[in-house]
Amino acid sequence: MRVGVIGASGYTGVELIRLLCRHPGVTLSVVTSRQYAGRPVASIFPILKGQTGLKFENPALDELFGMADFFFTAVPHQTAMGIVPKLLAAQKKVVDLSADFRIRDAAVYEEWYQTHTAREYLAEAVYGLPEIYRTKISKARLIANPGCYPTSVILALAPLLRSRMIDPESIIVDSKSGASGAGRSATVGTLFCEVTEGFKAYKVAEHRHTPEMEQEISLLSGRQVRISFTPHLLPISRGILSTIYAGLTRELGHKEVSDLYCQAYAKESFVRLYDEGELPATQFVRGSNYCDIGFKIDKRTNRIIILSAIDNIGKGAAGQAIQNMNLVAGLEEDMGLGIVPLFP
Amino acid sequence: MRVGVIGASGYTGVELIRLLCRHPGVTLSVVTSRQYAGRPVASIFPILKGQTGLKFENPALDELFGMADFFFTAVPHQTAMGIVPKLLAAQKKVVDLSADFRIRDAAVYEEWYQTHTAREYLAEAVYGLPEIYRTKISKARLIANPGCYPTSVILALAPLLRSRMIDPESIIVDSKSGASGAGRSATVGTLFCEVTEGFKAYKVAEHRHTPEMEQEISLLSGRQVRISFTPHLLPISRGILSTIYAGLTRELGHKEVSDLYCQAYAKESFVRLYDEGELPATQFVRGSNYCDIGFKIDKRTNRIIILSAIDNIGKGAAGQAIQNMNLVAGLEEDMGLGIVPLFP
Amino acid sequence: MRVGVIGASGYTGVELIRLLCRHPGVTLSVVTSRQYAGRPVASIFPILKGQTGLKFENPALDELFGMADFFFTAVPHQTAMGIVPKLLAAQKKVVDLSADFRIRDAAVYEEWYQTHTAREYLAEAVYGLPEIYRTKISKARLIANPGCYPTSVILALAPLLRSRMIDPESIIVDSKSGASGAGRSATVGTLFCEVTEGFKAYKVAEHRHTPEMEQEISLLSGRQVRISFTPHLLPISRGILSTIYAGLTRELGHKEVSDLYCQAYAKESFVRLYDEGELPATQFVRGSNYCDIGFKIDKRTNRIIILSAIDNIGKGAAGQAIQNMNLVAGLEEDMGLGIVPLFP
Amino acid sequence: MRVGVIGASGYTGVELIRLLCRHPGVTLSVVTSRQYAGRPVASIFPILKGQTGLKFENPALDELFGMADFFFTAVPHQTAMGIVPKLLAAQKKVVDLSADFRIRDAAVYEEWYQTHTAREYLAEAVYGLPEIYRTKISKARLIANPGCYPTSVILALAPLLRSRMIDPESIIVDSKSGASGAGRSATVGTLFCEVTEGFKAYKVAEHRHTPEMEQEISLLSGRQVRISFTPHLLPISRGILSTIYAGLTRELGHKEVSDLYCQAYAKESFVRLYDEGELPATQFVRGSNYCDIGFKIDKRTNRIIILSAIDNIGKGAAGQAIQNMNLVAGLEEDMGLGIVPLFP
Repeated sequence: MRVGVIGASGYTGVELIRLLCRHPGVTLSVVTSRQYAGRPVASIFPILKGQTGLKFENPALDELFGMADFFFTAVPHQTAMGIVPKLLAAQKKVVDLSADFRIRDAAVYEEWYQTHTAREYLAEAVYGLPEIYRTKISKARLIANPGCYPTSVILALAPLLRSRMIDPESIIVDSKSGASGAGRSATVGTLFCEVTEGFKAYKVAEHRHTPEMEQEISLLSGRQVRISFTPHLLPISRGILSTIYAGLTRELGHKEVSDLYCQAYAKESFVRLYDEGELPATQFVRGSNYCDIGFKIDKRTNRIIILSAIDNIGKGAAGQAIQNMNLVAGLEEDMGLGIVPLFP
Repeated sequence: MRVGVIGASGYTGVELIRLLCRHPGVTLSVVTSRQYAGRPVASIFPILKGQTGLKFENPALDELFGMADFFFTAVPHQTAMGIVPKLLAAQKKVVDLSADFRIRDAAVYEEWYQTHTAREYLAEAVYGLPEIYRTKISKARLIANPGCYPTSVILALAPLLRSRMIDPESIIVDSKSGASGAGRSATVGTLFCEVTEGFKAYKVAEHRHTPEMEQEISLLSGRQVRISFTPHLLPISRGILSTIYAGLTRELGHKEVSDLYCQAYAKESFVRLYDEGELPATQFVRGSNYCDIGFKIDKRTNRIIILSAIDNIGKGAAGQAIQNMNLVAGLEEDMGLGIVPLFP
Repeated sequence: MRVGVIGASGYTGVELIRLLCRHPGVTLSVVTSRQYAGRPVASIFPILKGQTGLKFENPALDELFGMADFFFTAVPHQTAMGIVPKLLAAQKKVVDLSADFRIRDAAVYEEWYQTHTAREYLAEAVYGLPEIYRTKISKARLIANPGCYPTSVILALAPLLRSRMIDPESIIVDSKSGASGAGRSATVGTLFCEVTEGFKAYKVAEHRHTPEMEQEISLLSGRQVRISFTPHLLPISRGILSTIYAGLTRELGHKEVSDLYCQAYAKESFVRLYDEGELPATQFVRGSNYCDIGFKIDKRTNRIIILSAIDNIGKGAAGQAIQNMNLVAGLEEDMGLGIVPLFP
Repeated sequence: MRVGVIGASGYTGVELIRLLCRHPGVTLSVVTSRQYAGRPVASIFPILKGQTGLKFENPALDELFGMADFFFTAVPHQTAMGIVPKLLAAQKKVVDLSADFRIRDAAVYEEWYQTHTAREYLAEAVYGLPEIYRTKISKARLIANPGCYPTSVILALAPLLRSRMIDPESIIVDSKSGASGAGRSATVGTLFCEVTEGFKAYKVAEHRHTPEMEQEISLLSGRQVRISFTPHLLPISRGILSTIYAGLTRELGHKEVSDLYCQAYAKESFVRLYDEGELPATQFVRGSNYCDIGFKIDKRTNRIIILSAIDNIGKGAAGQAIQNMNLVAGLEEDMGLGIVPLFP
């Protein structure tokens, strides 16, 4: 199977290339970039020297159709909704890494983003969280790859919500992300000197991943839920740690909750559960497709505090996209993703 | 006035020296360290070359009494309770930077720390948060310098609690601290390679600053309160950002809350309030004695999210200690503390 | 004396403001920025909240003349040569932080930069390294503030060159600078993710500070000298460490060389000499106007290796500019510059 | 083939485990650590959760012999010389990552280290730089894995030395290493707060890798050579960049030198050559076994400046050790080492 990456010059794009150029089940046949068209990928991203001879291209869409069978669209939201329908019309399968097909309710999408011009695909698109929608994904032709923050949060909450162990209205999500989440565009706010030795919150109570989390949390809870969500910018490249607070609906011990998580995730390749007393950290998942989950029950306040760590470019973007591709293509789900995290 | 620093070889100690060696109202006359006794301070901390000719000393306590009029004790908890009573007995005034005299209720202290052997001083000790206890501090001879996390949290919450705008039982504190908060002892966990490019929570729902915050929050609320508190380790040297969540007791607009903060802090030298749309960050207070506060009202969930930033070694330790000393000594409260933060 | 900063929105500009807003001998009366005109300085740089009520302005040049008596021009090279002559014509004194007036030989300037349109001022401009040109500076009306790398290198070499202890043709300068040296413009190359956890050389053997160093080294040596110079980009905000290699002209012991340095710099406020076995580091000068110098004699190869550390924004730019202003204005040379470095 | 790692709790140890647990040609059967004996490797290094069920062990040496066929000794120098002879006597093959068997001349070893108690193995040990000693390595039973700095330097210089293009006496090596090179022992000097936002030289002209480089440079030059070597500590975890200066013996253009490097390394899996105008950087080799080399000819001074980048734990330690093991065991040289560097 030939695969292509549309919009491959950002951090997610180069991670897709990094993973796909060694993927044993597919051939990376085309990577596009307007900015770098004609230049060898390895000259822009020297990590890829000796790994790929591909050049960035900027073909017309029609031409592009013939260059691969399966596409990743790693373009900004709003751009994606222009491209994806054409790819589908050309009988291609697509994992879209933008936000355009994640929100099922077009009105909600339009409240947080802008006008949606491809609403007719929203019902068909499958939210690409394999641990929750595996079967649907394997039959889909359009996968909406989840946002980085929602991935870390929904995986952490799903077993608790399904079992009604927590009050969904009490959920508070305090997330911290590395700077790669802000992309590779040149902006003053993400310059080294602005980020290093610093830490700040941004888009407090108004980040666009909020409705995406609320959608999935509501589905898992069986009722409409609103949550509080605060993202922060960490002075690291890669990694998200979400600290999630929720009120317990009854007194629970560590073992009871732990058993629930094991039941949900013991067979999963990419969810790792931490024992009592252990806590996940971004540096333990760096470069990998893992989502690491640990928790603590605070008997004093009858709350549970869940810690969930992912690599925002890995499980939070490119890794999960390839996991979805594997499912769609009928390959082993973990093919090409067996990377041990890098530490230190 | 001659001042001495007992236990001056840690990060708080060197910050005290950095500030005191240029303080126009006092003379730094003695700094102690068992480990470095006899060595010039500037040979251990080259930032102080050309600033001070002092050597670390390790005098017997009796000898020490004659060497200064006012003391900072920057030693671990439990050690402090052995030294402070002797200093007081020798008619010295003391700002103690340990936890030993912060908790008024010895039983609570003993639940979170260990046996208290100087309980008789707990009633006398004044909690050294000048913005709240200024008058008491100015008359005290023993100041319990607040913990770094509690400083950032209590200043952020005080106006809201006093005005009953928030439900104290709903308070969730998610704090992030730079690595200097862990001290200058050699441990694997604070090695560069373990901390950089990483982020983790620690002591979730069991950090010792919890009872200290609960004590002050309870006093401000007029009732016993328990909170959730999660500290995290940031890959930066200096700085704490606390993200604080609380349920509003009624619908409130930004202006109403903003006015309340202004009323509380407009005259304070070291509290800076952020306008709507602005958010504090650790890099904006680095090296200073400021506490920067901003907030956002989330109408969707009827919660307020408050962001509070300090330099954990500055307002969170040494800076605040000197602010307290100034008050006790009848000096201008901001003397020697007029440092503009360092950015970038 | 009213002072103005032209081009105040970069890292050097904000450092000038940081230092000038607390300078006891002058009043900062105007700061210009095209980009931020009309906005309070403290809203762009929150470190300055509570320190200054100034707004960025963008006055016409004629209008600007009336707003201050002394100017710092912190604009790019080529821009400076358009502004400085007009300021001088208006009877203002100027410290220019660009490269435009550093090179005495216009032909050399034009070889490394571009056409010079204000050549007639080159003879008059004084190279603003106070430790070498103090007397001239105090009588000048136009000071060419040295480049950051040259400052660290020339101070380190001057005593050795004057005494003919080293062979100037053998000089190799390997310098490493923090990212603030690249300025505050948004470029992909200085994004956090591109710089952190990385290290690279750039402009090897072709950096524009080369002729500036060669000019001063040649003057100190009494003959034309060419050197090798390699700059590198460090994943830190502030600081330059230059490692300088030179062949000794005869066998020398540490003490002999050390005495020479003491003789040259013992009375200097801003040069700190390190004892045998000690080595300077960027973290020991952060935020200050110090240049720290240490060295090692390698008897095995008969070379000397000199280490020289400055804060590139401090002694390498804004700090030195104020030191120059103090000299020109007849103020104490160290006025407003008595900042203890920040560590950690 | 069963392989064991003796001394597996440091950064090199965990990297060996990371690479070996997914190596398709060998089975990692035992990892030793006194400190962590009995504890699961994945509980100490959570990156390995889900990758290995191994526990750290601390068996007696006799017992250890039966547990693997091939050993990596990742213990400090001096300790290695006690263990290695016993492993060899037990018919095991060994890659020793300490310095104990790198220096052929025991007198030189003893001048820089301490007494050597296993001199009889020095003649037999092969210096494990496959690009230079491939054939010898494949027949050896004891490989002395090179030091990290020497790896970066010798690979960069070998073609130039063999072709007599440079004057070996003029070689100056200015190297910069990430903090993992200092190991995982708890020391104040490698605490996060001491290293971050800083940069310093250490062991100037007296680092123990000097004689190792001189040995190989002398062999390549055909005469005894002494070099200048200055190591520096970078605020990054992984990576070495060596900037190497040498006088050219005649006028040379970029192409001529480039052809020489191509001739030497075009067939090598782990040496990547940079085109004119490109420069290696530590962030482009992170996590990999690559050595990236670029250079610039400075016609003004008739010197060449070579830049050489490796991951100090990869090609500088564990990666190269496995490359050596592959050669000794008759496996494909790059087996288990096909890791794309991690960026950002």
